[in-house]
Amino acid sequence: MNDAMINETTVKEMVRSVLSKPRFRHVSGVVEAADQLAKRYGADPLKARLAAWTHDYAREWPVDKWYEVARARGVDPSFLEVAEALHGPIVATLLPEEFGIDDAEIADAVRYHTTGRVGMTLLDKVVCLADYIEAGRTFPTVDELRKLAEEDLDVALATAFDGTIRLLLDKHKPVFPLTLMARNDLWQKIKDKRKL
Amino acid sequence: MNDAMINETTVKEMVRSVLSKPRFRHVSGVVEAADQLAKRYGADPLKARLAAWTHDYAREWPVDKWYEVARARGVDPSFLEVAEALHGPIVATLLPEEFGIDDAEIADAVRYHTTGRVGMTLLDKVVCLADYIEAGRTFPTVDELRKLAEEDLDVALATAFDGTIRLLLDKHKPVFPLTLMARNDLWQKIKDKRKL
Repeated sequence: MNDAMINETTVKEMVRSVLSKPRFRHVSGVVEAADQLAKRYGADPLKARLAAWTHDYAREWPVDKWYEVARARGVDPSFLEVAEALHGPIVATLLPEEFGIDDAEIADAVRYHTTGRVGMTLLDKVVCLADYIEAGRTFPTVDELRKLAEEDLDVALATAFDGTIRLLLDKHKPVFPLTLMARNDLWQKIKDKRKL
Repeated sequence: MNDAMINETTVKEMVRSVLSKPRFRHVSGVVEAADQLAKRYGADPLKARLAAWTHDYAREWPVDKWYEVARARGVDPSFLEVAEALHGPIVATLLPEEFGIDDAEIADAVRYHTTGRVGMTLLDKVVCLADYIEAGRTFPTVDELRKLAEEDLDVALATAFDGTIRLLLDKHKPVFPLTLMARNDLWQKIKDKRKL
């Protein structure tokens, strides 16, 4: 990534121009949380902020457009199963041409911010967890997650995924297999780390 | 399957000879439950009983032997991730030579009895649910499952899988991705059925 080429304010204003006010407030919260988590855990704060600014860029498109653009841009077909998971991989493919952001780490953090994946990078984790705990979030377990986020990035994120899975089980809704595999992978790594 | 070739009593006694008494009691319970579910939902009761008699035939092997035999017999590598899921696919490969049971439906019901799968057959569902609700089971939600099993096979099984997943989440243990995909598939089919 050539930092000189990317003006964070330009990115922010582009995002503001396409999102509703509440969604833009959420995105701003994710940027703030991602910046803090990046600094706490040693990720690149600029990359974290750019991924956070852009992660929901296509979030408010109609479902039909998600499917159409996902197919046209060759998004991995496994994402097609759950519509709500499509905007991440779509935005990942738009980053170079729309924002001049040509960086594989940022693209991955955006691509997997909803689902997670096996072998999440530090940047993936920072952006994904920031999306859960940003200041505007009010779900019942969010304060527990915020506390965990100050203690252990992996435990916080695995706990966040488990909460999402429980919620979807309770509603009899589909759970994205990548999310299950991501939490299996995180808990295994946490267990291995504790053995050391 | 040539019924004349298979003597159910011989199968039963072979299974009894390799299992501990408590496990054999469990297996006998699964046979009884599978027979009842098969009759209720229109599966073949003999196939259901033969799958039930044999499903745990390799359950008490040491973990090393599971891995060794699974690799030697070409069990799908995705099963290797969770040791407790290996005995099903192993027994599925043993059915013709050990029991003279050469039937793809029985083999599948045995193969997927622990994990489930996407697109479960009626026989798969009968055997899998029987394993959850046989008379010897005492876990907290088993009576709810037994009640659901009299009303709707798919709802009962999806609820059973969700219970297993919740338990594993609570313990921070790995969840087999096939089980998640099986419950996604079942709840989707239940939803589609209710729309009709």
